[in-house]
Amino acid sequence: MSASKLKVAIAGLGRMGARHASHFANLTPRAELIAATSPEQKELDWTQQNLPGVRTYLSYDELLEKEVKNGLQAVIVSSATAVHAEQAIKAIKLGLHVLCEKPLSTNVEISQSVVDAYRESQKKYPNQKVICGFSRRFDASYRDAFAKMQEGVIGRPAVFRSQTCDKLDPSGFFVEYAKFSGGIFVDCSIHDIDLALWFFGEDSKIKSVSAVGITAVEPDLRKYNDRDNAAAVVEFYDGKIAQLYCSRMMAAGQEDTTEVIGTKGKLAINTQPQLNLVNITESTGIRREIPPHYYGRFRDAFITEANEFTACCLDNTEPPMKLEGAVTAVRIGQALQESLISGKRIEFAEDGSRIVPEMKAKL
Amino acid sequence: MSASKLKVAIAGLGRMGARHASHFANLTPRAELIAATSPEQKELDWTQQNLPGVRTYLSYDELLEKEVKNGLQAVIVSSATAVHAEQAIKAIKLGLHVLCEKPLSTNVEISQSVVDAYRESQKKYPNQKVICGFSRRFDASYRDAFAKMQEGVIGRPAVFRSQTCDKLDPSGFFVEYAKFSGGIFVDCSIHDIDLALWFFGEDSKIKSVSAVGITAVEPDLRKYNDRDNAAAVVEFYDGKIAQLYCSRMMAAGQEDTTEVIGTKGKLAINTQPQLNLVNITESTGIRREIPPHYYGRFRDAFITEANEFTACCLDNTEPPMKLEGAVTAVRIGQALQESLISGKRIEFAEDGSRIVPEMKAKL
Amino acid sequence: MSASKLKVAIAGLGRMGARHASHFANLTPRAELIAATSPEQKELDWTQQNLPGVRTYLSYDELLEKEVKNGLQAVIVSSATAVHAEQAIKAIKLGLHVLCEKPLSTNVEISQSVVDAYRESQKKYPNQKVICGFSRRFDASYRDAFAKMQEGVIGRPAVFRSQTCDKLDPSGFFVEYAKFSGGIFVDCSIHDIDLALWFFGEDSKIKSVSAVGITAVEPDLRKYNDRDNAAAVVEFYDGKIAQLYCSRMMAAGQEDTTEVIGTKGKLAINTQPQLNLVNITESTGIRREIPPHYYGRFRDAFITEANEFTACCLDNTEPPMKLEGAVTAVRIGQALQESLISGKRIEFAEDGSRIVPEMKAKL
Amino acid sequence: MSASKLKVAIAGLGRMGARHASHFANLTPRAELIAATSPEQKELDWTQQNLPGVRTYLSYDELLEKEVKNGLQAVIVSSATAVHAEQAIKAIKLGLHVLCEKPLSTNVEISQSVVDAYRESQKKYPNQKVICGFSRRFDASYRDAFAKMQEGVIGRPAVFRSQTCDKLDPSGFFVEYAKFSGGIFVDCSIHDIDLALWFFGEDSKIKSVSAVGITAVEPDLRKYNDRDNAAAVVEFYDGKIAQLYCSRMMAAGQEDTTEVIGTKGKLAINTQPQLNLVNITESTGIRREIPPHYYGRFRDAFITEANEFTACCLDNTEPPMKLEGAVTAVRIGQALQESLISGKRIEFAEDGSRIVPEMKAKL
Repeated sequence: MSASKLKVAIAGLGRMGARHASHFANLTPRAELIAATSPEQKELDWTQQNLPGVRTYLSYDELLEKEVKNGLQAVIVSSATAVHAEQAIKAIKLGLHVLCEKPLSTNVEISQSVVDAYRESQKKYPNQKVICGFSRRFDASYRDAFAKMQEGVIGRPAVFRSQTCDKLDPSGFFVEYAKFSGGIFVDCSIHDIDLALWFFGEDSKIKSVSAVGITAVEPDLRKYNDRDNAAAVVEFYDGKIAQLYCSRMMAAGQEDTTEVIGTKGKLAINTQPQLNLVNITESTGIRREIPPHYYGRFRDAFITEANEFTACCLDNTEPPMKLEGAVTAVRIGQALQESLISGKRIEFAEDGSRIVPEMKAKL
Repeated sequence: MSASKLKVAIAGLGRMGARHASHFANLTPRAELIAATSPEQKELDWTQQNLPGVRTYLSYDELLEKEVKNGLQAVIVSSATAVHAEQAIKAIKLGLHVLCEKPLSTNVEISQSVVDAYRESQKKYPNQKVICGFSRRFDASYRDAFAKMQEGVIGRPAVFRSQTCDKLDPSGFFVEYAKFSGGIFVDCSIHDIDLALWFFGEDSKIKSVSAVGITAVEPDLRKYNDRDNAAAVVEFYDGKIAQLYCSRMMAAGQEDTTEVIGTKGKLAINTQPQLNLVNITESTGIRREIPPHYYGRFRDAFITEANEFTACCLDNTEPPMKLEGAVTAVRIGQALQESLISGKRIEFAEDGSRIVPEMKAKL
Repeated sequence: MSASKLKVAIAGLGRMGARHASHFANLTPRAELIAATSPEQKELDWTQQNLPGVRTYLSYDELLEKEVKNGLQAVIVSSATAVHAEQAIKAIKLGLHVLCEKPLSTNVEISQSVVDAYRESQKKYPNQKVICGFSRRFDASYRDAFAKMQEGVIGRPAVFRSQTCDKLDPSGFFVEYAKFSGGIFVDCSIHDIDLALWFFGEDSKIKSVSAVGITAVEPDLRKYNDRDNAAAVVEFYDGKIAQLYCSRMMAAGQEDTTEVIGTKGKLAINTQPQLNLVNITESTGIRREIPPHYYGRFRDAFITEANEFTACCLDNTEPPMKLEGAVTAVRIGQALQESLISGKRIEFAEDGSRIVPEMKAKL
Repeated sequence: MSASKLKVAIAGLGRMGARHASHFANLTPRAELIAATSPEQKELDWTQQNLPGVRTYLSYDELLEKEVKNGLQAVIVSSATAVHAEQAIKAIKLGLHVLCEKPLSTNVEISQSVVDAYRESQKKYPNQKVICGFSRRFDASYRDAFAKMQEGVIGRPAVFRSQTCDKLDPSGFFVEYAKFSGGIFVDCSIHDIDLALWFFGEDSKIKSVSAVGITAVEPDLRKYNDRDNAAAVVEFYDGKIAQLYCSRMMAAGQEDTTEVIGTKGKLAINTQPQLNLVNITESTGIRREIPPHYYGRFRDAFITEANEFTACCLDNTEPPMKLEGAVTAVRIGQALQESLISGKRIEFAEDGSRIVPEMKAKL
C-alpha cells in the first residue's frame, strides 16, 4: 500500500460537486484534495471556507495548467453534464486519472469519444484509470446482492426489475432540469440500466427496448420531450428482461428499489425504503420516514467510490467497472427515451445494430 | 335481511371447486349448498363424504333439470375454463344467479356471449345477478387501499404496478396447463388487469398494450405460445399506465403485489408477502415464510366473495362489479398475450377499435 | 366424522358473547346454536334479530332447564367474569361440554372449584370436555411458532418475552373495568402467562414473580389497586424466565407481541403489528395501520376455537389444553398483581407453596 | 471553525482501540492521530503498518511525557476496562481532553474518582472536555427518536424498554470475559441504562431495581457471578419504568432494540434488525441478515463520536452528555448485577441512598 496520497482536483462544485469535494478532502484518507474549479465564484468561496488549503480556480484549463505542475494526479469531473466529456477528455490527454460523474454525456457519440480518448491515452499511460461514477456499484447492499448472486443463491438471473424514483419537487425544478438532462431515462434510469448490465453481465446484448410515459404532475415536461413517470422494458438476447420504472412524483422521498429474480430465488434491494431504524407509532398507525433525496440513500456509496477510486489509482488495480459500460448505458437510455416519445418499440440485431425503426439522423 | 337461505349448486369440484363448495356449505351462513356436479365420480365421492346432504350429479344438465324443481336459485361455475361460458349461459337462461370463476372464457367473443345472455335474460329476470369471480375485489387489503384512494389519500392515481407470481412447480404442471389456460396474461395477469380497471375506473380506455417474455425454467411453454416470465405495459387514454409482471418461477411461494401511485402518495398492497405473523431468527438471519399458493393469500377473499354474492342475490343489491369488466379484462389479457408472442405493440383508438397491427382473423 | 351437529347454547351476549354467538351460529359448520341467555333484554333482542331461530332466555337456569330437554350438549360461558365459574359449574354438573371465557375467575380458589367440578363430573361423563378460552392457543401464528419450536428450530427455549397492550381508551372505561377485572395482569397478561406455560411446558414450576407498574394516563386506577402500564418477570425452576409487559396506553391499536428465545434461535410473533397488507406512502413517510382491538388481531383464532371445541365434543378427542392450566395462569396473574401493589418479589418452593412473603389471608 | 487539527493519542489498540485509531486517523478530518500506545508490541506493529506516521509506545506514561511536548491535546482511552480510570485521570491531570470508552470502571467509586479528577482539573483548565463513550448517543436513529420525543410526538415518555443482545459465541469467550467485565448489566445493559437516563432525563431518580437471570448456554458464567440472559426492571420516582433484557445468545447477530413508550405514542429503534437493505427470497421464505457484532450496528455512531468529540475540543462547545451520567449508569448496572445474584429487589430513597437491602461493604 502506497503511503503517499493521491493528489486530486475537482471540477464543478454544485450540489454533488461540493459533496464529492468534502468526501475527497475529509473522508478519503489516501487522497488529498489540492484544487477545485467552478465557474461560480460563490462556490469557490464556499470551498475556501469549508475546505481550507484547497486552491480554487474559475477556469478549468487554468487549474489543469497550474496543478499538473503541483503534482496533480486525478480529476473528479462533477460539473454540468454538458461539459463532462470535454473536461474528462482534457484530463485524460494529460494522463490524469478521471472519475467522471454520470452520464459521460447525454449523447452516445460524445460519450464514446471519452472512451476513445481514454483507450488512446492508455497507450501512453498504461496505468491510467478512468471511470464513470455509477454510485450504486459501490453501495454495500447492491454489492452484497451481487455477491450472493455470484454464489448461486438465486440460480441463473433472468428478470431484473428496478426503479429510480425522485421525490416530487413542486417548484418546477424538474422542468428546467429537463432542458439538459437528456430525459428521465438518461438521467434517472441510467442507474438501473447500469445495474442491469452489472447483474446480467456487461456483454449482454440488447434485443429490444420499449417505453411509455405520462406527465401526471408536470405537463410542461412535454416541451422538452420528457415525462414525469415512465415504464420500460429492455429485452436481452440471452432470454433475460429488465423492467424499469422511473418517476419524479414520490410523496415521501427517494424510492430506488431493485429486484433480481433468478431461477431459484430473488434478491431484493431496498424494497422497504427507510431513512433510519426508527418506527413511530401514532394514533394513525406505525410510520417510518424515508430519505428525501438520492444522497440520503447513497451517501456511503459515494464515500466508498471516492476511496476505491483513490485506491485503484494509487495501487494500479482494476476499477470495479469498465468505462465502455457507461456508453452502453447511455445508448440504452437514449433508445428508451426515443421509444418513450415515438411510441415505437426499437429492435436491435445481435451485433448491436438497429433493426426497426430505422435510426433517425439524430434523436 | 331475508331469513331464508339461498339455495346454491356448484358446477366443478376440482381444486378450487371443492373449496368453493366448502365455503358455501360451511362458511356462508345465508347460503345452503344443495347440489354439486362434476364429470369425475371421485370428486362426487369426496363431496358426499365431506359435505353430507349435498346431492351430486355427473351431469350438469341433469343437475339443472332436477334442482330447479327443488328451488335452486344460484349456480357457482367452477369447472374447467373451457366450459365456463356454456355452463354459465345455461344457468343464466333459467333465471338463476351465477358466480362464474374467472375467466369467463379465454376467448373474447365467447366471454362476450355470457354478458349478452345475461343482459337478455335480465329482461325477464330483472333481479338476476351474474358476476365473474375476481377474488381480489373481495380482499380486505385491496378494499382498504381502494377506499383510501377514494378518500383522496394519494391524490389522482396515475401509475398502477402489479404482479401475479406463482411458486415454481418443477413437475411440469404449468406446461400441461398452458394448453388450455389462454396464456400467462389471461391466466395470471387477468387479476392485475381487473384491479387496474377497478382502481383506474371501469370505463378506462386502452391506448396501447405491449409485452415481452422469456422461458427461464420451462422452455416447453413455447409449444403453447406461452412464457414463464413476462413483463407488460398497458397505456390508457387519460394519461395513466399499468405496468405488469407475471411469473411461474417464485422460489418461496405466491407473491402477488400491487402499487397504486398517485400524485400525492402511494398505496402498496402485499409488497412484503408473509404466510403469517411469525419471524424466525436463525444463524443465517431473520426469515419469514410466505403462502405457497394463491389460496393461502386469498382464502378470506373467497369466503367474503361467497357471502357477498349470496347477500346480493337474497337482498337484490348491486354486486361490487359489473360483468362487462370480465370481458374487457380478457380482451386486454388476450392482446397482451398476442403482443408477447408477436413482439408487436398493439394500439387502440379511443373507441376501442384496433389501429395497429391490424387484427388477425384469430389469435 | 359425526354428521350431526353439536347443539350449543351461549351464556352472555355482551361484546365478546355476541361474537361467540355469531361464530357458533354462522361460522362453525358442525355446531348449531340453539339458545342464548343474557340478563339484558336488548341483547336478547339483538340475538333474535341477527340469529333467527336461536331461543333466548333472561335466566341462565331456565335456559339449562329447558334446553337440556331439547338436546343441549354444550354451553359457551361468555358472561361477566364474576359469574363464569358459577355458570360453568352448573353446566358441568349436567354433563354438558363447556367452553368458558378466560379467566375462570379472578380468584384462584374459585377457578380451582371449576376444575374440581369438572374432574368430579368426568367420573360420570367420561367424554365431557371443559376448556378455558385462551384464544391465542388457536391462533395460526402462535401455532406455527409452537410447531417450529417443537421441531427444534430454536434449540431449547429459555426466555419468553410477551406483551398484551391495549389501545388507549380515553373514556375512562378501563377505570370502571378495573373494579372487576382482577387487575391488568389477571385481565391482560393472563394470555401471555398461558402462552409461557404452553411454550415452556404446562408442568413448569414457578420460582418467583415480581412486578412494577405505573399510572401514566389513568391515575384513578390506583383506587382499584391497578395500573395502566406494568412490567414483570416470572422465574421458573428449570432455568427459564418470562418477561412480561402490559399496557392500556397504545396510541394506534392492539400490540400483542411475543418472542420465544432459545439456545439456537428465536421465534417472534407479531413484532410488527399490522391491520392488513396495505402500506401507505404519504409526504410524512410510509405508514401502516394496526388493529384497534384484540378482536381485530384474533378473530380467526376465535373462529378456530369454536370449530375445534365443537370437533372435540363431537369426536371425543382431546382439547389442545388442559383446564388445570387456567388455574395456574390465574394463580400467577394474581401473584403478579400482588407484587405490583406490594412492591415485593414473591417466591415459591418447588412444590408450589409460597416462601416469601408469607401468603396473606386474602389478596 | 478552527483550521488547525486536534492532536490526538490513543491508549489501547485492541479490537475497539484499533477501530478508534482508524476513525481518528482517517475519518475525522479535524483530528490528527499523532501517537498510540499498547502493552502489546504486535498492536503497535499493526499501527505502524496501517496508520503510518503515528508514533507508538509500549508505555502510556511515556506517551504522555513525550507527546505533550509535541502538542498532544486529547487522549482516547480504549484500553482494558481495568485501567480506564487510571489512564483517564493521568490525562485529565495534564489538562488533556479525554474520550474514555465505557465503562469508566466496573466499580462505582473508581468511576466517581474520574469525575472528581475532571471537576478538579476544570478549575485549572476550564475548557477541558471529558466524556464517556456511550456510542448510542451518537447514533442517527437514537438521535432522531430523541428529537421526535422532544417535539412531543409521543407525549410524555413513561415506559422505556431496551435490550442489548450479543451473538452467541460458542468459543467460551464470554466466560473468560466475565472475569473482568463487571457482569452482563455493567457490560451490556449499561448502554440501555444510559439511554434510559437520556430519554427520561439525567436527573431521574431511581426508586428500585430488580433482576433475574439464567445461564442457558454458559453455565460456567456462574463462577464469576454472571449470567448469559437476564431481565430487569428499573423503577424511577416520577412514575417511569425501564424494562431491560440482555443476552449473549442471539443466533444471527447483534440485536439491540429500544422502545420509548409515551402517553401519545411510541418510538421504536431497530426493532427489525438488518445488516443492509437486501432481502433474499429462497425456497424457505424471505430472509435478511443482521450485523454480527455491535460494530456492524454502530460503526457510523463511533465515527460521529470521534468527529463530535473533536469539534467540542476545538470549538469549546458542550459535549452531548455530562460525565456524571457515566457514574450513575455504573451505579445502576452494579445494583442490577447485585440483584441478579442475590435475588433481592433493591430500593433507593429519593436522595439516592439505599433503603433495602442494606448496602454490603462491597459488592
